[in-house]
Amino acid sequence: MAVKRFVLPPDCHGEGEITLSGNDFHYLCRVRRLKGGDSVPAMLADGSRYFLSLTERGTNTCRARVLPDPDTDRQGESGLEEIPPIEVYQAVPKGRALDDVVRRCVEAGVTRVVPVYTDFSVATAQPESSERNRREERLQRIARSAAEQCGAVRLPEIAPAVELSQIPSFAAKEDAAFFLHQEPLAEQSLHGYLEAAIRKVVLAVGPEGGFSPPELRLLEHKGFCPVYLGPQVLRAENAAFFAVAAIRVLLLERESWTTRNRQT
Amino acid sequence: MAVKRFVLPPDCHGEGEITLSGNDFHYLCRVRRLKGGDSVPAMLADGSRYFLSLTERGTNTCRARVLPDPDTDRQGESGLEEIPPIEVYQAVPKGRALDDVVRRCVEAGVTRVVPVYTDFSVATAQPESSERNRREERLQRIARSAAEQCGAVRLPEIAPAVELSQIPSFAAKEDAAFFLHQEPLAEQSLHGYLEAAIRKVVLAVGPEGGFSPPELRLLEHKGFCPVYLGPQVLRAENAAFFAVAAIRVLLLERESWTTRNRQT
Repeated sequence: MAVKRFVLPPDCHGEGEITLSGNDFHYLCRVRRLKGGDSVPAMLADGSRYFLSLTERGTNTCRARVLPDPDTDRQGESGLEEIPPIEVYQAVPKGRALDDVVRRCVEAGVTRVVPVYTDFSVATAQPESSERNRREERLQRIARSAAEQCGAVRLPEIAPAVELSQIPSFAAKEDAAFFLHQEPLAEQSLHGYLEAAIRKVVLAVGPEGGFSPPELRLLEHKGFCPVYLGPQVLRAENAAFFAVAAIRVLLLERESWTTRNRQT
Repeated sequence: MAVKRFVLPPDCHGEGEITLSGNDFHYLCRVRRLKGGDSVPAMLADGSRYFLSLTERGTNTCRARVLPDPDTDRQGESGLEEIPPIEVYQAVPKGRALDDVVRRCVEAGVTRVVPVYTDFSVATAQPESSERNRREERLQRIARSAAEQCGAVRLPEIAPAVELSQIPSFAAKEDAAFFLHQEPLAEQSLHGYLEAAIRKVVLAVGPEGGFSPPELRLLEHKGFCPVYLGPQVLRAENAAFFAVAAIRVLLLERESWTTRNRQT
């Protein structure tokens, strides 16, 4: 079972003393109920491991010492690192559904989430604004707290939102790039796509109305392949989680299955 | 893509005229914006198909005629029926998380959900009471609306909550019964369990604290096998959906993979 690690704040870069307030104070002193001398497993965003030892508890802030984790050599504590990273390009859904998508993606072990503006997205790209910054910060907070709760081995990256045309191409053979498609047009099964040794899985998830025909062409041009995961109509906040769950289990059990084509 | 069908109310048993009010009126006349003469695909809870044609629209109620679906012979419209049924025994989580579990289970194509009281459940069994009836009715409503939204081929059954000791045994070879386990103790992979021809998949999902040791013994005694789906710690409202997603995709692609053991 994964160890739940406190994610150290971005201004902390390793060993030393830090002061914590706000959500961090609340989590450590109220939720985890740490007292002076208590310590918890912690990590930097990149997954490097430490212990955090509480030295002083105030009313709204606390002081803590960041110590090396003696077990730091023990690789693959949770096995998560043995699975190739999974990136999700998620069409921005309406309302606050993106919060749920990010939370569940982190929980499902996604390593990077990139919100994408698409033709059928309700939300549209905004120029650099304080509202946009606030949104990005909220998603970062959500990702951090989800990572702590689910015992992630590193803090997943939540990238700033981009237009679909800005997403990179994944032409390399070792990158398995898919988009979800509602019809069983896919030439290959998910098993087929994930059979070869892969370096990274990239998943594009459309909005409620799906990707538009020009967007589908663009995605195929960028090396994304259609994948059909069944006839159920998934809500925007569930589609990525559904697909990632299946991808994770196929990768986790990669040694136990082979496709029928290979067999002959 | 699945056709979204209006689920006819329980007191409707097939062709004829019906009066609709409350949520049904709201859904048809406000959400779907039907006018007199318009019709929508509909079904009874068992999945038998009809058309519902609006004859009269009032302020809070409407009259509609239930007509035979001329395409009723077309089997497997959405392909959902080709996959063995999936039943979920879900430990009752705290608060309203069960609502989310039911909604997502229906969306993921689960055919039956049975809430279960377990040692580490916060909620406990209540004697027959109006509060209990209200809860059961709310879950039924949630399931019905989720089935309409996701184009289910029949209305999934939401059973009354039971104690873990009351759940049946699944000793038959054609029933694949699992419980989620946080450690990779499982002797077999999910692929291994789902490789044989199966009649039904049964999944038991524990509460936040997991099943207690006596409960684990009881489940194994009842024919449930442990399955490990990775190190991520899933919240109670996400665990069933994660597992069902993986199960669904493995079953959907059943023809495309084989386990390595079989191959040798």
